[in-house]
Amino acid sequence: MAKVGILGATGSVGQRFLLLLSEHPDFEVSVLGASSRSAGSKYGKTTWRVSAEVPLKYQDLIIKECKPENFKGCDIIFSGLDADAAGDIEKSFVDAGFCVVSNAKNYRRSPDVPLVVPTVNSEHLSIIEKRVKEARAKGLKRPGFQVCISNCSTAGLVVPLKPLQDKFGPIRYVSVTTLQAISGAGFSPGTPGMDILDNVIPYISGEEDKMEWEAKKILCPVNKEGDGFALLSDDQLTVSAQCTRVAVSDGHTECVSFKFKDRDSVPTLEQVKDCLRNYQCEATKLGCHSAPKHSIYVLEDPDRPQPRLDRNRDAGFGVSVGRLRKDPIFDYKMVVLSHNTIIGAAGSGILIGELLAAKNLL
Amino acid sequence: MAKVGILGATGSVGQRFLLLLSEHPDFEVSVLGASSRSAGSKYGKTTWRVSAEVPLKYQDLIIKECKPENFKGCDIIFSGLDADAAGDIEKSFVDAGFCVVSNAKNYRRSPDVPLVVPTVNSEHLSIIEKRVKEARAKGLKRPGFQVCISNCSTAGLVVPLKPLQDKFGPIRYVSVTTLQAISGAGFSPGTPGMDILDNVIPYISGEEDKMEWEAKKILCPVNKEGDGFALLSDDQLTVSAQCTRVAVSDGHTECVSFKFKDRDSVPTLEQVKDCLRNYQCEATKLGCHSAPKHSIYVLEDPDRPQPRLDRNRDAGFGVSVGRLRKDPIFDYKMVVLSHNTIIGAAGSGILIGELLAAKNLL
Amino acid sequence: MAKVGILGATGSVGQRFLLLLSEHPDFEVSVLGASSRSAGSKYGKTTWRVSAEVPLKYQDLIIKECKPENFKGCDIIFSGLDADAAGDIEKSFVDAGFCVVSNAKNYRRSPDVPLVVPTVNSEHLSIIEKRVKEARAKGLKRPGFQVCISNCSTAGLVVPLKPLQDKFGPIRYVSVTTLQAISGAGFSPGTPGMDILDNVIPYISGEEDKMEWEAKKILCPVNKEGDGFALLSDDQLTVSAQCTRVAVSDGHTECVSFKFKDRDSVPTLEQVKDCLRNYQCEATKLGCHSAPKHSIYVLEDPDRPQPRLDRNRDAGFGVSVGRLRKDPIFDYKMVVLSHNTIIGAAGSGILIGELLAAKNLL
Amino acid sequence: MAKVGILGATGSVGQRFLLLLSEHPDFEVSVLGASSRSAGSKYGKTTWRVSAEVPLKYQDLIIKECKPENFKGCDIIFSGLDADAAGDIEKSFVDAGFCVVSNAKNYRRSPDVPLVVPTVNSEHLSIIEKRVKEARAKGLKRPGFQVCISNCSTAGLVVPLKPLQDKFGPIRYVSVTTLQAISGAGFSPGTPGMDILDNVIPYISGEEDKMEWEAKKILCPVNKEGDGFALLSDDQLTVSAQCTRVAVSDGHTECVSFKFKDRDSVPTLEQVKDCLRNYQCEATKLGCHSAPKHSIYVLEDPDRPQPRLDRNRDAGFGVSVGRLRKDPIFDYKMVVLSHNTIIGAAGSGILIGELLAAKNLL
Repeated sequence: MAKVGILGATGSVGQRFLLLLSEHPDFEVSVLGASSRSAGSKYGKTTWRVSAEVPLKYQDLIIKECKPENFKGCDIIFSGLDADAAGDIEKSFVDAGFCVVSNAKNYRRSPDVPLVVPTVNSEHLSIIEKRVKEARAKGLKRPGFQVCISNCSTAGLVVPLKPLQDKFGPIRYVSVTTLQAISGAGFSPGTPGMDILDNVIPYISGEEDKMEWEAKKILCPVNKEGDGFALLSDDQLTVSAQCTRVAVSDGHTECVSFKFKDRDSVPTLEQVKDCLRNYQCEATKLGCHSAPKHSIYVLEDPDRPQPRLDRNRDAGFGVSVGRLRKDPIFDYKMVVLSHNTIIGAAGSGILIGELLAAKNLL
Repeated sequence: MAKVGILGATGSVGQRFLLLLSEHPDFEVSVLGASSRSAGSKYGKTTWRVSAEVPLKYQDLIIKECKPENFKGCDIIFSGLDADAAGDIEKSFVDAGFCVVSNAKNYRRSPDVPLVVPTVNSEHLSIIEKRVKEARAKGLKRPGFQVCISNCSTAGLVVPLKPLQDKFGPIRYVSVTTLQAISGAGFSPGTPGMDILDNVIPYISGEEDKMEWEAKKILCPVNKEGDGFALLSDDQLTVSAQCTRVAVSDGHTECVSFKFKDRDSVPTLEQVKDCLRNYQCEATKLGCHSAPKHSIYVLEDPDRPQPRLDRNRDAGFGVSVGRLRKDPIFDYKMVVLSHNTIIGAAGSGILIGELLAAKNLL
Repeated sequence: MAKVGILGATGSVGQRFLLLLSEHPDFEVSVLGASSRSAGSKYGKTTWRVSAEVPLKYQDLIIKECKPENFKGCDIIFSGLDADAAGDIEKSFVDAGFCVVSNAKNYRRSPDVPLVVPTVNSEHLSIIEKRVKEARAKGLKRPGFQVCISNCSTAGLVVPLKPLQDKFGPIRYVSVTTLQAISGAGFSPGTPGMDILDNVIPYISGEEDKMEWEAKKILCPVNKEGDGFALLSDDQLTVSAQCTRVAVSDGHTECVSFKFKDRDSVPTLEQVKDCLRNYQCEATKLGCHSAPKHSIYVLEDPDRPQPRLDRNRDAGFGVSVGRLRKDPIFDYKMVVLSHNTIIGAAGSGILIGELLAAKNLL
Repeated sequence: MAKVGILGATGSVGQRFLLLLSEHPDFEVSVLGASSRSAGSKYGKTTWRVSAEVPLKYQDLIIKECKPENFKGCDIIFSGLDADAAGDIEKSFVDAGFCVVSNAKNYRRSPDVPLVVPTVNSEHLSIIEKRVKEARAKGLKRPGFQVCISNCSTAGLVVPLKPLQDKFGPIRYVSVTTLQAISGAGFSPGTPGMDILDNVIPYISGEEDKMEWEAKKILCPVNKEGDGFALLSDDQLTVSAQCTRVAVSDGHTECVSFKFKDRDSVPTLEQVKDCLRNYQCEATKLGCHSAPKHSIYVLEDPDRPQPRLDRNRDAGFGVSVGRLRKDPIFDYKMVVLSHNTIIGAAGSGILIGELLAAKNLL
């Protein structure tokens, strides 16, 4: 059992990490960290909003401050910290030699930090592998490092784009409109009820920029040296995103149009569907505990995917793609549904952890 | 006072016609038509779902069958009939010499029927004007004719595109994703509660095709002869639509990206905003009773327009445009909000009626 | 035109006061007060959440601090202050000689302050009338005084109980479960979206106690001296309330069972309905501008009243009562629907103001 | 493995039976029955609305007509038929010697049919046990018989009342207002979206009568002869119900007030809570597969239970009780939350089946 520490354990992302880990066969939560305000009190006192109640086994854990010395013995750190706290704290953990898997946005654009959707670009972990091997070859301890979880709306977008790009060459243009669930906005207060009842909020601060940028890192290759990424330029991939918030609890719906770069090898509709249907990610091949049976479900009913019916496929790690059809401007259009708190946040973090363990990097 | 007949008066569109007409200064409802099942009973028995109760003045009207002989003396007919009934019935009324303004889709693509969003292309009524003048010049009675109301989601789309096209030349590409309200789907049953609570339905039968086609008729010029339309070809305007249903009662939100044809005269962002802000439609210039003060409201707050806050601008005849900004693939993107049962359905019908009256065509 | 000042003008209750007053024929808003944080800036900068935008006429008003010296010349003060601010500030205005109509809970239980639902117990204003007349008889200025608006859920409850009590004698027991709208909880944050989407919150802090107590003051007679109230004791009227929050924007639904005290004169179902149907409140008799045509609408359809369809009767001043039927434990049960921000808050405040003006007490 | 047949397998209740049985260790579905319209086609063609898709193992089953000869070899029949079909069909199955567990209302009031909430009154099955034993003693086959599942809102109500009655004597008065989920109303169309978005429907046809009557059967003792029930009279137990529909997908919330009959032995609040906390139903004692760990969860947080957080306790077989407190009219009031499609419908049916198996009655 790998020992796990959680940063930001009382927040909504932290609570989800904990819930997903509470029955995990290979990870065991041993330290819960939060702000100094909560430190010292029992975790069972936390206002718990993700399910009926704090799992019994965590009720009596005493919350610690998020300092490396409090997490000794942890093999992996999952961070659900807010962006304003994550910057310094996560750095201090990496500096202290920890492996940090973070949901915060702070280090996603760092050249030496992989930004990973685990069913998409687990090969990006190779830059960590290289570093770890080099250290171990020198007889040194595994160095501290960080892996970032992508933004939730980016995750849903890149899942179907990756196998298509791998098979049919670069995708040149992506136009996407999201209809995002409110669970990603947290609980206190998160999205106000008056904003979401009988309403749509056509704006999520910073979200469009994240989608337009992160896709270029996640879909890019590792550089030749194997120690960083050959980011896609605007001339290679252009993404245009419009992000909205709708009255859905869990599950981001994305209406996506895309166009391949190489005009001579544009696949047929059936080829696109087959490619998505047959895609198998590395985590599934490695037999990771949380890996979905299918990374992608291609649905044929015209009114699918729907959040209520499809968000929980393969415990939220399977992404649904429906309404694949020709686009009169781009090549194809489709509707993608992904579970924003699973493949789009804490769930991905845990699957990244499982990949790191499978690759002997913890 | 022009005398009004309503076809399909017991349905949801018919009820909205009636509600909007109940206080109208120039129109007076005199005949209510419905299916033979309802004919003969008092209108007050209708299950009324658009507001608290059937307006008192219509309670005792006896419902008639939808036959021309029952509507003698009516100056204008508003049709809220379903598509399966509208085909034959509306034709019989036109043949009998009536002016029919219809919300049904049946005749929208007929070459001699104007498809009108009244704050957009009222000039399309000139083909009717020509016919009526010719008949009157020969001493004949005004001939029967029909005008079609556009599909609700098309209406919201073309409102901002029209002034831009008029000022900056043709628009070549439009990519749009809609988040549509459920009121447009009717009441019995309309959208099932289980489909819309904590859910999105990423499909509305026939809707995308309507948007992609109707825009080309509404935005096209009258032909040289003045008796029909020079429909835009796919090479002139390409529209790609993805339509979804969300948990909103009234008000369609549309995320729109668009690109001008003439690359030498692409306006600046400020020019686009100014153009939209300054647009005044013919109905407003003519002083039509229901015409909005402003056809378009340009909003600067980043999180607007929102259905709950903005759908009722100018009693639902004013369309809101927000988040105007550069698009990395197209020229600009924006969020458009329109009231689907007002500017997108019955309300437009009434404003078309007012335009016809102002142009002396009733 | 009476000159109006508003305390707490930037909050959700204050915004509603302002919206309702923006077209008022007899009241003119002249001073807007808020906290020192907002004071000095233009009101147009306020984040406005009750409709599309701040009415034009108030855009340029400069917000003042809530101090009596800033409100000179105001004939009436409407207070939308939160309870933590209302205590001291409202007292300072009364001490300075102002007439204060308050939505806050602070002074509702004060023996010399009428707690008024204007379509129910306007006769309670007589204790103010007495004080004012006595002062004027002495040649003194009208003294400062306060009138409190009842809690929103209490308002809906007492509207039908009052005419029944007046006609058939005391009501001994009332058992009520409320299904309350979220608009009453304010905007920032108000009820969180995650709490209300696909959910019910079976608790509203302090609400049940308010209903159980306030009903006894509102339904009681003025004392013999005419300067206070003969509060109903627990032996005279017992109210048991259970309050819940549901996914409704506006409109409180209340399921009410009640039993008369005098067992010999229990009215028949038809007598109960007739009594409610025929009730006319003093404000209506006096012709107050906002007074409803009918204080109570008795609905016969089995599935009414419904918030969406019935909350706006008589602009929200008319209360709907449906499903009147025998109760196997109490005498009768019924469903009552009232608009929580109109008859349950700001709207009542303005109608109280109109009553005070009609009674020459400003 | 007991072989199972399902009547009404294509409807919403039938679909839930199937989903719950798809992983059941002791029951194996072997025949799926539906109307003659569906008979002959593969079950996989059914429009499936309770989760992502029809479980793989049922995809190729051919639907049969609901005739006893088609269900040969079935040890137990679960019926999800609508009331209009259930009457004749279920009778024909009982006559043919089958054990029928039905969710329909048709036979709930039959004197020889137990009406069972399995965590409440499994002792009512003794009248079946008697019949079966007598037949077997004569060397006869087990006779056909029927057990009815209670109405969903009744189920939630009686769960906490039963242990209280068992411990502290008869309950004399119960006043209950329900806030019911829409899943119980089915899918096509079920509750229309326009009825439930931003709305409450204060009426569910027949529901209040069911609650007021069924509670008297479920809470009554078996008669002295052991072959029927000593129904509680109106003088023994009076229930007054008000039933509403709210925008919740699953989970009925009920606000309940109750009063004990024996005024000398009214328990204290702590005694009430202890009694509920310590209650263990027979199904749990017998180790039935679906039996909840706790039939009742007593919650202390003031804002609980909530449908979103608490409906899935013990897979929906555990009922949550919160806000237990003194009632000024009755003895106590509380909020009860139960999962309407599990403990209130199909789930109860399956647990009844498990009880029948454990008691050797199949």
